[in-house]
This record gives sequence, structure tokens and C-alpha cells, in this order.
Amino acid sequence: MSQTSSQSMRILLDQSEIPTHWYNVAADLSTPPAPPLGPDGKPVSVEKMAEIFPMNILEQEMSLERWLPIPEEVRQIYALWRPAPLCRATRLEAMLKTPAKIFYKNESVSPAGSHKPNSAVAQAWFNHAAGIRRMTTETGAGQWGCSLAFAGQMFGIEVRIYMVRVSYDQKPFRRSMMRTWGAEVFASPSELTQSGRMALAQDPNSEGSLGLAISEAVEEAASRADTTYGLGSVLNHVVLHQTIIGLEAKKQFEKIGLYPDIIIGPCGGGSSFGGIAFPFLADRAAGDKRANNLRCIAVEPTSCPTLTRGAYAYDFGDASGYTPMMKMFTLGHDFMPPGIHAGGLRYHGASPLISQLVREKLVEPVAVPQLATFEAGTQFACAEGIIPAPESCHAIRAAIDEALRCRETGEEKVILFNLTGHGHFDMAAYDRYFSGALEDYEYPAAAIAASLAHLPKVG
Amino acid sequence: MSQTSSQSMRILLDQSEIPTHWYNVAADLSTPPAPPLGPDGKPVSVEKMAEIFPMNILEQEMSLERWLPIPEEVRQIYALWRPAPLCRATRLEAMLKTPAKIFYKNESVSPAGSHKPNSAVAQAWFNHAAGIRRMTTETGAGQWGCSLAFAGQMFGIEVRIYMVRVSYDQKPFRRSMMRTWGAEVFASPSELTQSGRMALAQDPNSEGSLGLAISEAVEEAASRADTTYGLGSVLNHVVLHQTIIGLEAKKQFEKIGLYPDIIIGPCGGGSSFGGIAFPFLADRAAGDKRANNLRCIAVEPTSCPTLTRGAYAYDFGDASGYTPMMKMFTLGHDFMPPGIHAGGLRYHGASPLISQLVREKLVEPVAVPQLATFEAGTQFACAEGIIPAPESCHAIRAAIDEALRCRETGEEKVILFNLTGHGHFDMAAYDRYFSGALEDYEYPAAAIAASLAHLPKVG
Repeated sequence: MSQTSSQSMRILLDQSEIPTHWYNVAADLSTPPAPPLGPDGKPVSVEKMAEIFPMNILEQEMSLERWLPIPEEVRQIYALWRPAPLCRATRLEAMLKTPAKIFYKNESVSPAGSHKPNSAVAQAWFNHAAGIRRMTTETGAGQWGCSLAFAGQMFGIEVRIYMVRVSYDQKPFRRSMMRTWGAEVFASPSELTQSGRMALAQDPNSEGSLGLAISEAVEEAASRADTTYGLGSVLNHVVLHQTIIGLEAKKQFEKIGLYPDIIIGPCGGGSSFGGIAFPFLADRAAGDKRANNLRCIAVEPTSCPTLTRGAYAYDFGDASGYTPMMKMFTLGHDFMPPGIHAGGLRYHGASPLISQLVREKLVEPVAVPQLATFEAGTQFACAEGIIPAPESCHAIRAAIDEALRCRETGEEKVILFNLTGHGHFDMAAYDRYFSGALEDYEYPAAAIAASLAHLPKVG
Repeated sequence: MSQTSSQSMRILLDQSEIPTHWYNVAADLSTPPAPPLGPDGKPVSVEKMAEIFPMNILEQEMSLERWLPIPEEVRQIYALWRPAPLCRATRLEAMLKTPAKIFYKNESVSPAGSHKPNSAVAQAWFNHAAGIRRMTTETGAGQWGCSLAFAGQMFGIEVRIYMVRVSYDQKPFRRSMMRTWGAEVFASPSELTQSGRMALAQDPNSEGSLGLAISEAVEEAASRADTTYGLGSVLNHVVLHQTIIGLEAKKQFEKIGLYPDIIIGPCGGGSSFGGIAFPFLADRAAGDKRANNLRCIAVEPTSCPTLTRGAYAYDFGDASGYTPMMKMFTLGHDFMPPGIHAGGLRYHGASPLISQLVREKLVEPVAVPQLATFEAGTQFACAEGIIPAPESCHAIRAAIDEALRCRETGEEKVILFNLTGHGHFDMAAYDRYFSGALEDYEYPAAAIAASLAHLPKVG
């Protein structure tokens, strides 16, 4: 509460300042990314991938170009909410009595309420440009499904969403949002696909899983010539689209003459984390001295500790082994994390690009327990007003921990974290936190070893 | 979709451009506002009002000064989300094939998701400045309760909220938000007050009403020296605080060299409508020719047609006749509107200031049926992304109707409407709309005549 009126707490950019290119970190890796492999252990052919993705998306997925242009049509839809504000959390700083400067990029301002539309809009546009009129996807908590529903509506693409049954029943309002934007939403397992029918035959009351919903969405896309599939994280092109976050943040820091010392983001599949961190790693790769000591911290739940306790190995992207194998940190494709509320962070694997950067020590993973994340999220809400999504609470926890360390050392570090979304559809999770019903959960080493024992054998 | 990249769809202001004064329309009325009356039919004394409001708020309530300063501390909290964007709905214009230019002021960007914090923050600050540490209020749908909870947290004021029982049970997530910001929330009727205990004695399963919740909150504030009461609409000081909306919009229109021909807002108690319209009426009062033909349209539901079918008379502000009587348009204090989803518009009366301006033909009331508002809201969401609150859908309906009229006449009118809030906590209403369960309701004339027959006799 000590700031004067001359200090702007929100650094805004004009629509004309929306970046014109995405940044592709693959161009700056010390070795090229390992290719995805098919069931035969050989790199998957483009023809095979083209069954479910249009070529213009596959070109981005495999590109080693550093900068890829953002189509004008995508920038125009981005302009409905972008550039997103870069905000200084001066009230949180005061509450923590820290000399650190805490900034957050507010990605909760999109129509769907998170960073996810950054890629959904791009995917919908490239599919539209490739003549596609229909897309399928899966959604767990509903953030990605909402985003693709919104994006499809923007470009006249029909969207069919397979929503994990348990979420479909528990989160009716996310479903309502998707329908408002004109998408079809079905509970998965469904009767619409072979995968779904098989699952229902085995268990008519199946609650579904993200892996199964992926199988249904991919099966339908592969079986229909007019339909493609869209994925909300993990893959290179998704992370690419999300770099709009960090690229805007760089422009905003330039306006106030600062540069971050620490960049923090939640990490599930990894697209929002890569999205905010990679553009700053580009500076480091380019020899920019300001970025020499930059720390990039990827925050995951202790209950799904992919980067901190997983193996770096080839594994399937889905639970059933339907997708190509990717080289990544993984807990094993049949690892089943407990039902924590940060649904976006319940994924057994991680983006291959982020995984490689963790191996190269350019990204620092940390795991935090659930209760501490809600404590941090509530503190943030009381200081800055915004009620954060449970995923974002992971980043806030780590940001507060770093700020408290600065209080000990007296360092005036500049901390940037990614506020990936608001918690308006997650209030039941806050209720459980306030009522004391939430618990922490740390996976036993034996359980992780058991699922890692099922990793596919490659080469 | 036809705009070029050079056209900014969002007109932003810097924090330093947040207005420094609110506009008080009472200074520009042709006759002074009629005073509130006590049960004896005489103007209520300041001493009586001071039982529940601090003097600095009462001074605003009674002021005839044209401009009242916004304290620096209030501007600093406003800066967490203000200035709010003025947006041009170019995609909606294209969808409607209208030559009209449609703008909306996006008040959904506040932490509580609506315009309500504009007054809540001011009320919390003035109470804090007057040495008050505790406030009570009531809430129906939850927008106002959330806003005062948030605002109280900003200035260290304890907030106790009486939430209408039926909302308390049906809208648990609004309740969770209030608790996140540290407020106490009780279902009304409660055991905490005499009014509540009497209601429970009559009906232990009472669903409550806004009028009863007001009685509980006022009773507690009147009975405790350390506690005051905060109201979220209707009163002059609340409308005053909301003029920040229109004052910002004026600056934003100046930046693009335009001036609105038509200003549209939903109207329940009236604070958001007054907030966007009054600053433009100030121009008209000052002889500004651009405002000569300005139309200000207050949109209400046909199911609660206060301004279009009510009487202009003294009436109580609450259902039970506990508050002073105010000169306003009213359907009678015991009028019971059906349970439409735009909870913020279910009020039997209207702001005395707006009522007077309707009488003076400076504000034009229209009533719209519920189904047509959801149709408009869905169309807006598909064009512009944002899913609007049911209250806002009323303004959108009227804005679309005006834009369609422009298509007929070829006029390129500039239309401004108030997007008062998002619909994230109203998705159940959208579900009912999509499922065909919603109905329109027009009040029979006899029913309105019956409640108007109970108006208090004055003078």
C-alpha cells in the first residue's frame, strides 16, 4: 500500500504492439529436439501425423526456424484481450515485507479465463486456412475445451469436445461455456467412438480419463477426412504459440527499464511455462548479459512430480499408448496422480522442449504441496484482488517463497510469474481448502518406480 | 472481421488518467432532489442516518457540489483494474451488418467481475477514514457482497454479509469468493438479528428476500457503535461513485475523436446506468452541442418494469418498510418480481436521481423480455468472446436493437453500452436458456395496481 500514484501498477501495451512473430526455442537448443517415434521405434512420418493435423501446423511442430510469423487474422482475435497486462504486485510486496519486485503477467483476462486461447486461436486459424471445417479435442478440467470452443467460433470451425466424464458431471458450468460458444460437448467415454464403446463395455459407469478422451478425439479425427485434432499443451507448436506471453512481457519490462531475475510458471504439459520463459531464454542464447544469471523455475505439484522425480525417456503421450512416443520427463504413461484441484498439472509427462531444457540446466524444476499453493493463492487474492486458478497458485507459491528469501538476503530481485488463469470455475476447490478437507499427497517412491517400469522399450 | 490492424478495438488509458473527481448529477438537476422522508412524513435527520452511515458518506449523499474528489487511496485500489477498457465491438457490427459503431465499456474486468467495486472500494475507504472497522451489508445474487468483501479486505475492514437464503444455497461459489476475501457470510434470515429470528419463527424454512436481508444488515449496523452499513445501489452516493465509468469513457472517446449518440445501460437500482450516462448528461447541462441529441436508454426487464410501468411516488427502499421513504419510480415495496436470472434487476424501485431524470425526459426507459436478452448475450459472446452477465444482456439487447435500426436507416450512429459484468457465475442461467426452460413473463396490470395500492401515504 506504499506505492505513490506515479508508479503504474499495470504496464499496458497498445494493440499495435502485439508481437508479429512467435519465438521457437528449438532453434536455440544445443542439440536438435529428439523426434517422436512410432510403435516400430522409428520416427513417425509426416504422412501419419497428417491424419490428424494439417500441414501448416506440422510445419510449425518440426520447424527449426527461430521466428515464425503470427498471421494478421490471429493478431486480430488476440486483440480482443491482448496485449495482456503486466502487473506489479505492490500490495503483495508490502504484505510480505520483501525488497523484491514482484510482477505477474495476467493471462486470466482472455474470454476463456486463461492462457489457453493463445494456442487455440492459432490452431483454429491454421486449420481454417488449411480448409478444415471441423476439429475434435478432449478436455479435463475444461480450460482447453472452452478455449478451442471460443477459437472455433471465431473462425467458423465446428468443435466437438470429449470431456472426461467425471469433469462433465462435476463442472457443468465449464460445459455451459463451451456450448455458449457453439461447441458440441460429450462425456467421455462416449458411444461415438470405438475407444469409447470399448471402455463403456468394460465399465458402463466409467468416470473416464484424459488419456481415454484423447483416444476418442484422435480416433474421430483420424477417421474423418474433414476433421482434425487439436491438443492444448505438450507439443512444440502449442508452446510456440504461447511465447506471445513472454514476448509481450519483454516489451513491457523494456518500458519500465527492468529485466527479470527469476521467471516462474506452473508446469503441467508445459505450454504456459515455456510461453513465458522461452522468450527470455532467447536473450540468453543471443548473449544478452542481462539474462546471464536468469533463473527459470517450473513449478509442479508434489503429487505429480514429473520434472523432479520422473525419468527422462521416450514415453507415450496418452495413458493407452495410442500416440507417438516422445522423449520427455515422464512418470510413466500409466501413472495415475491423485485428484488434486490443479487439473491442468495432472499430466504424467512434460513438453519435450522443456524436458530438454531441464536436462541442460536452463530450467529449474520445483515441486510444491497442494495446501501451500492455496495458502499462497488466498494471500494473493487478499493483496491484489484476483482469485487465481489452482494451477496459477503453484506459481504464486514459488514466487512468494523467492520473495521471502529476498527478505532474508535483502536482495531487490525482479520476480516475474505467470498468472495463467482465474479461479472463477474452481471455487469448489477453495471451499475444500477453507473447510480443511484438502490434503497434501506425496507419491511413494515405489509407486513411481512401478509406473516407470512400464516405460516402452526403445532402440 | 473486416477491421484492419490499424484500428484499435480496445481504447486503453494509463493509470495516471484515472479521473480525480466523481460527477454529481444533483448539481445539474432542474430542481433539487426530493429528500428522503421518515415514518412521520418529515425529512429524515442526519443524526438518524448517522446511525448506519459515517458522516463523510452522508455528506456525499446530500451534496449539491458538481465535482467531488476521489481520494488518492481509492484511485490506487481502482488501479488494480482501472481504467477499464472501452472496446469497439467490430465483430458484432459485422455480424449485424450495421453501419452503427458499437462500443462497450468493459466493467467485467474488476476482481469481483462487475462494476460494483467502484462504489464498494469508495465506501470501504470512507468508512476506514471515519475510523470504522466493521461493516454489514446484504447480497442477493452475490455481486455486491463479493465487491464489499473485496473492498473491505483492501482497507482492513471486517465485513459481514447477509446473503438471501435461496442464493446462499444456490450460489455457493459467490459465497466462496466472499470468504476468499475474508468476509463472514450468513444465510438470511439468520439467528443473529431480531428481524431474522422473527422471520424464522414465522417460517423456519424461509428462503429469505432482499428486503429481509437489508433489514438484518441495517439492524445490526444500527445496534453496534463500531459497525456501519453499505448499500450497493439506489442511493445518490453509490451512483456518484459509479460515474467513474462514464468519466473514463469520455476520455476514451476523446482519444478517438468520437462522441456517443446513444448510451445504454441495464437499470435495476440504477447505479451502473447512472454511472455511465450521467457524465455525458453533464456535457449536455454544460451546453456541449455534441450532447444535444444524446439518447440515454435505461433497460429493465419486462418482468420488473419499474421505470416503464411503475408510479413516481414516495416509497420504502425495502420490502418491510424499515428504510426511509424515497421519491422514485416504484412498483410498490411489496411487489414481488418473478425469479428471473438478472438478479441485479429485480428491485421494486429505482435510484431517485434516475427517476427524476426519467421524469425530465433526459433518460428514456425501455423494458425487454428475458429470452431476448439471453439471445443477445449469446450473440455477443460468439462475436466478442466475453460471456456477459444476465444484467448486461439487457443492455446488449437494446444496443443490438438500436444497431439493427441503424441498418434500416443507414445511420452510422455511435452506440455505447455498459458491459456491467461477466457471466461466469451465471452459467446455470445460460443452461436454462439453451435447454428451453426459460420463459418470458409480463406482469399483469392488475398485479402492479395491487402493489401500487400499498404505497405509503405521504403529505
